[in-house]
Parts: sequence; structure tokens; C-alpha cells
Amino acid sequence: MSQPQDPPRSPPRPAPARDVRMRGFQDRAEVTDVLALIDARLRPLPGEALSLPEAAGRVLAADVVSDTAVPPFDRAAMDGYALRADETFGAGPYNPLEFQVIGEALPGRPFAGHVRPGQAVRIMTGAPLPDGADAVLPAEQAHEHAGRVTVSEAVSPARHVGRRGEDIAPGSRVLPAGRVLRPQDLGVLASVGASPVQVIRRPAVVILATGDELLPCGSRPEGFRIVDSNSVMLAALVRRDGGLPAMAALIPDRRDAVRAALQGAAADLVLVSGGSSVGQEDHAPRVLAELGELSIHGIALRPASPAGLGFLDGRPVFLLPGNPVSCLCAYDLFAGRAVRRLAGRHPDLPYRGATLPLARKIASAVGRVDYVRVEVRDGRVEPLATSGASILSSTTRADGFVLVPRDSEGHAAGDLVRVFFYD
Amino acid sequence: MSQPQDPPRSPPRPAPARDVRMRGFQDRAEVTDVLALIDARLRPLPGEALSLPEAAGRVLAADVVSDTAVPPFDRAAMDGYALRADETFGAGPYNPLEFQVIGEALPGRPFAGHVRPGQAVRIMTGAPLPDGADAVLPAEQAHEHAGRVTVSEAVSPARHVGRRGEDIAPGSRVLPAGRVLRPQDLGVLASVGASPVQVIRRPAVVILATGDELLPCGSRPEGFRIVDSNSVMLAALVRRDGGLPAMAALIPDRRDAVRAALQGAAADLVLVSGGSSVGQEDHAPRVLAELGELSIHGIALRPASPAGLGFLDGRPVFLLPGNPVSCLCAYDLFAGRAVRRLAGRHPDLPYRGATLPLARKIASAVGRVDYVRVEVRDGRVEPLATSGASILSSTTRADGFVLVPRDSEGHAAGDLVRVFFYD
Repeated sequence: MSQPQDPPRSPPRPAPARDVRMRGFQDRAEVTDVLALIDARLRPLPGEALSLPEAAGRVLAADVVSDTAVPPFDRAAMDGYALRADETFGAGPYNPLEFQVIGEALPGRPFAGHVRPGQAVRIMTGAPLPDGADAVLPAEQAHEHAGRVTVSEAVSPARHVGRRGEDIAPGSRVLPAGRVLRPQDLGVLASVGASPVQVIRRPAVVILATGDELLPCGSRPEGFRIVDSNSVMLAALVRRDGGLPAMAALIPDRRDAVRAALQGAAADLVLVSGGSSVGQEDHAPRVLAELGELSIHGIALRPASPAGLGFLDGRPVFLLPGNPVSCLCAYDLFAGRAVRRLAGRHPDLPYRGATLPLARKIASAVGRVDYVRVEVRDGRVEPLATSGASILSSTTRADGFVLVPRDSEGHAAGDLVRVFFYD
Repeated sequence: MSQPQDPPRSPPRPAPARDVRMRGFQDRAEVTDVLALIDARLRPLPGEALSLPEAAGRVLAADVVSDTAVPPFDRAAMDGYALRADETFGAGPYNPLEFQVIGEALPGRPFAGHVRPGQAVRIMTGAPLPDGADAVLPAEQAHEHAGRVTVSEAVSPARHVGRRGEDIAPGSRVLPAGRVLRPQDLGVLASVGASPVQVIRRPAVVILATGDELLPCGSRPEGFRIVDSNSVMLAALVRRDGGLPAMAALIPDRRDAVRAALQGAAADLVLVSGGSSVGQEDHAPRVLAELGELSIHGIALRPASPAGLGFLDGRPVFLLPGNPVSCLCAYDLFAGRAVRRLAGRHPDLPYRGATLPLARKIASAVGRVDYVRVEVRDGRVEPLATSGASILSSTTRADGFVLVPRDSEGHAAGDLVRVFFYD
């Protein structure tokens, strides 16, 4: 497996609910099986109607078909003179031709009359082409004086005319369902009057951080209490992936508190940070198994092995390790994929990738995927030395990460590896 | 010039105010000179204090130095037993050693006593290491029964202990000024209690769209009136580049209206869409020259030659062509660079680039930069056939664009070109 997007195998059966606390994981799910389960169970949410300014970066819920033409009329593509092209044939520096200027056409203010032989209408870019005219002679090739314009160059029919429907024909599909709306897409949708537009609803994601030792984000660490760093990180990740995060109040390490928080989470997806492993204070896996379904618990992935995935009332619940690097890793590989699927986005990692040579070897173990933070210097990939699961600063010093496949013992210096860049 | 980020030449002198309407541009500024002027005149805005959840994706205004250690105390990195490592030496399957379990340490709930010889404390990941202990024996290597724990493997001092300050030492720089805050950066800032955090203020950008023919975004096109597509596109572009856009009411094609709108625009940067050229209805260049400074008018760039740049009360004003492709091009190359500079971001184009072979030739003219929309199929670059300045759908069909340098007559099929991807 070169990256977690490899073809998935068939999803594993849900594990039976059991208390594995303090006994270690009996067997760990394969990364590919977790991905397959996510892909098998999650579909994009339904659409909602949004005005175009609100729809930037959102995902179209349905094809948009135009019922109008853009432009809606023939119009000038240059400033100049609208006239009958065949009348300019033969014009040249030594054979200037004269036309009577009978009026003016401006954008939004068309010329009301008809252009007849020997006549021209002064016209500005974007103005409707007057009846009778079939071309625009650019202003630079004409000289106007006292109600007449002198033409010293021929112009061919349809020249400098933007034809009705040349940008968008009526009945044509303007943008496909699933499109992540670019800035210019909003312009096109505005042009055809497609507002409001149906976009996939953003998944509401409730973030539950558990731990008696935690102080809320914004506090200063104090005594033996540390500040919850996962919630604010997860909220930003969820937003990046198209979700709408809500950071809930911190949950103490008590089974009833974890249970109440899980039952009360009104969301399309729930993230539980901390208490995901097999220690005596790790309540979330058992509570989830009791309330709903604990499908996966323990994953062959370093440093995020004490992670889990289940469902409650049909909605996915991700159990993320409290160690911040593990939390980031488990979010990016699994929970983020689920958020992206619900949001109608491409499920793969949203990081730019590049294939580059290793400066130093990476050691790994067969049987698990390794998430290795790396720096890239002069185009060469250096694994970070300090990279424990609790060292969040390793993910701020790193430029990105490498995923070592489960069947690999690692990579030698000089090997080409795929780097995913955090920025 | 392979892309607009080439080393700039010295900025040009401001052009004198003059009425060039209907006469065509006398001479056009070079793209590199426009970039140099932007770089010379614009600096990042000052900082503002934000809470961490609000600071996602924002730019740090100053270095953040930690005045605390992370972790703030020695702590267990595994679930297990805290004890004195040298007492386990010699332990093995055939020589199990026993310790008295004198209590428990949990995250946020430390063990209050002292671990003496022959004693151990049950400890959970993240809990403070009790006094006297110097290592954690993992739960899997121990067996607890009736107040005693049997140890069948030795553990070395400091093993499975997260040392105070091993993630972040007090006094160390956590993140540098100018950093675009990643999700994990917010986690690190939360850990050290750095909240609120000083980030560069987002530039307020007022978007003025001019044109009697325009209906506001959200309308349906009607008769000879079309819907303003540039404002909503520009708003999304500004937001992408770190600015805070405000779409103003549409401005009619009257000099007094354009003048009042420019004078009334309370912003760090103003975008004027339409009326930027030399036609009789193109009021913006003259008005800007009268009110402030018209530094650039006319740029050697297709399709955005009728673009301009000036300053009003020290704030940049960009005159963008009304044709939507030209508007996008002039925004991305010039106005967007200014927004990114004010926002403290990297000024270069925010598009992913790749170097790929051309499937068909691109013709260009020496003396101007060409912005060519392309599709990428099977790794080969195809210039779009329909690509007039008014064909906004060319930028939705395209995967990205190629910039043909001013000194080039174009590229032959098979040439390697740099593609900037819209997505």
C-alpha cells in the first residue's frame, strides 16, 4: 500500500462488543479495511439552497443547466462602430470610405433604430449590436468628425461581435453535480441567473474531548492540568474538509459523562478525542458498543493504533487517540475521509503530494502502516528525529508526512517516497 | 519570463493623468513592472488579537515564544506501572519480580505520595509520574493481583516517560511571524496557552462593479441587461487570498457616480470592475487620476490589457476589465498579489503548478504576456479553442492556465510548459 487511497478490500465485519480495557488490542484492523468501511457506509448529505456569495467553495448537489443564453444578445466585443461589413470592402488608406454616424449604442442602452447602407452606430464594448449591423469596426481604425466616420480598413462580417449564446447556449449543462465551486464558477452561475443554487449540506461535526486533565482551549496550563489542544485542531481540520465543527464542553473521564455526551451529540458525525484506547479510563469504546455499534477498535497504524470507528443512530462516531499526533493522523486518514465523503468532496487526503528521494532511511515494521513526519530540504526527504505520538510540535516543524505501507520494512536512503505536504 | 513571479525590474514612474479615452493605449506597462510596483508599495497590515478557533488559516503577526513547558511535568507515555527502573533489572520470565501497588495516577489526578523501593503506582497515559518513580512498565508486561504487580521484563530509566518540556521547552519559539496557521499549529498554541494570538488583520476589500447594463448577482438576465458576474467571483477570490470582501451596490456608467463610489469606499484595497479601458464610458481611470494617482493604465497582457492600478489616500485601487476572463486574469496576476501582500501571505499565484508537455502549439506575440486557458488530458496540455475574453465558461471548462512570457512567440507542440491549476 503506497497510500491509504489504494483499492480497498471488502469491509470487515463489525467486532463484537467486549471490554478490552487494560488487555491490549487482540488484533488490529487494517488501514485499508477502515477506509473500505467508511466508503461503504457514507454517502454525501442532501442539498440545501444557498445564494451564490455563500456558495463559494461548496459542492454542487445537482447539475446546473442553463435556461438562458450568455450573452443573451449579439454584442460588441470592442469599442468602435457598428456597420454592415460588406460596405467596408475595398476600404484602405488610399481609399477611405465614409459613413453617417446615426447614433450610439451603450451597454444597457441599445440603439433603437436600424442601421441602413451608408450608416454606422458608435458602439461600446458590451453594447447590443444594432439591427442591420453585422460587424464592429474598432475605434482605432476609424476617424469620426462632424457626424461622419472615415473608415480606412475593411472589416469582415461578424468581426468583433460576441454572438448570442457563444459563452453558454440555452439548455447546456453549465456545471456538473459534485463540482467544488471555483470563484469563476460563481460568475458563470450568476450569468445564467442560477441563484440560489443547490449545494450539498455541510456535515455538522460535534467534537467531544475527554479527559480530567484538560483545561479548555484559551486557558493557560496549570499544575497537573494541560490545555485541550485537539479540539481546536480538529475544528480547523473539519472546516478544511467541508464540515461545520462545533467544539463541545470538555467531558470528564467518567463513563456516565461520556455516555451522556455521546447520546446528546446532535451531529452528522461525532469525533471523540481521548479515552479511545484500552486503559481503565478509556470509556468511549465500551459506551459506543453499548449505545450503537463499535465497528473498528484498534488499527494497524502507528501512531494512531488506539483509534476506533462505530455508528450511533446511523451516524459515524470516530474515537481518536488523545495524543495529539495520533489524533491528527487518525483524523486525516479516517475521520477526515468521512467528513469529506459526507460533504461530497473527493475522499482522498487533501494534501498536495510529491515523489522525492529520502535523505535518510525510514525503519518500519511489517504489519502496520507508519505515519512519518518529514522535512523536505533541497528536494530531499528527512524523517524527523523527535516524533513521538505526544510531540505535536513535530507536526508544526514537519513539512509533511510519508506513509510507509503495511508490507514494507521501511525505505532506504535514496528511495523515492510520496510526501504529503501539510501546506 | 516563465511566470509573473520573475525577478521584478524597478517600478515605473507614475503616468501623468491624461484622457486617453477612445484613443487606445499609447504604451502598455510590462507585467513585471506592475508586479514590482505592487511589491514596492504594499506591506502587510498590522495585527489584531484573535481567539485560537478564529485564527485558523490566518497569518501570525509576530513570533510566538512559549513561556511554559509542554508537557508541563514528567508524565506516563503508556498505561502501566510507575516504578524505579533499576529495581526491575534482572526481571525475566524465569525471574519475575514483585512490587507493592500503593496507588494510582490518572491524568489530572496525580498520585500524591512517593514511590519507594519495592513499590509501584498504577498509571495511565498522560498522568503525572509520581515522585520517586523514573520509568513506566507497560501494562502488557505486568500482571497485577491482590495489591501486588508481577514484573517479568526489565525497563530502563526514563522509559515510557514523556519528559517535561520534551515537546516545547520554555522560552523556545513555537511558530514564526508570517506563518499561515495550520490546524496543528492551533493545537500547539493552545498547549502553551498562547491565546488570544496576534494575526495580521484581513484587508477589507470593496468591490465596485460599474455598468448600466448590469443587474445584481442573484437576478435573472432580462432584455439587454446582463447579470454582474464579476463581483461574486472577485469576492470569492479575495476571500481565498485572505481578504474580507464587500460587494457594493452596482455603479452606473456616470462619472459622478464612479467618483462618489471611489471616494466613499472605506477599504484597505478597492477593486473596480468594468469601465477600466479607454472608451467614452470608461470613467474610472480619469476619476482615479483626478482623485489620487493613476500609476498604471494599460498592461502588456492578453486578455487583461485594459487594466489599471493607482492609489487613493495611500490605498491601492485596481481597475479591472469588465470582460470576465480579463477580470479574472487581472485579479489573479495583480490585485490578488496585492491582497496577498496586505494579508501577509506569499505573494505568488496561489495555484498548484506542474510542468507538462503541450499537446498542441500555443501562438503568442512578442511584447505581451499571454494568459492561456488549458485543459490537461492524460498529462498533456491542450489550449482551449474558445477562449475569448468574454467567455467566462472557458475558465470553468479549463483545468488551469499557462502564461506565455513576453519575449516568446509561443510554444510548439511537445514543449514543456508550466501549468497553474485552478483547483
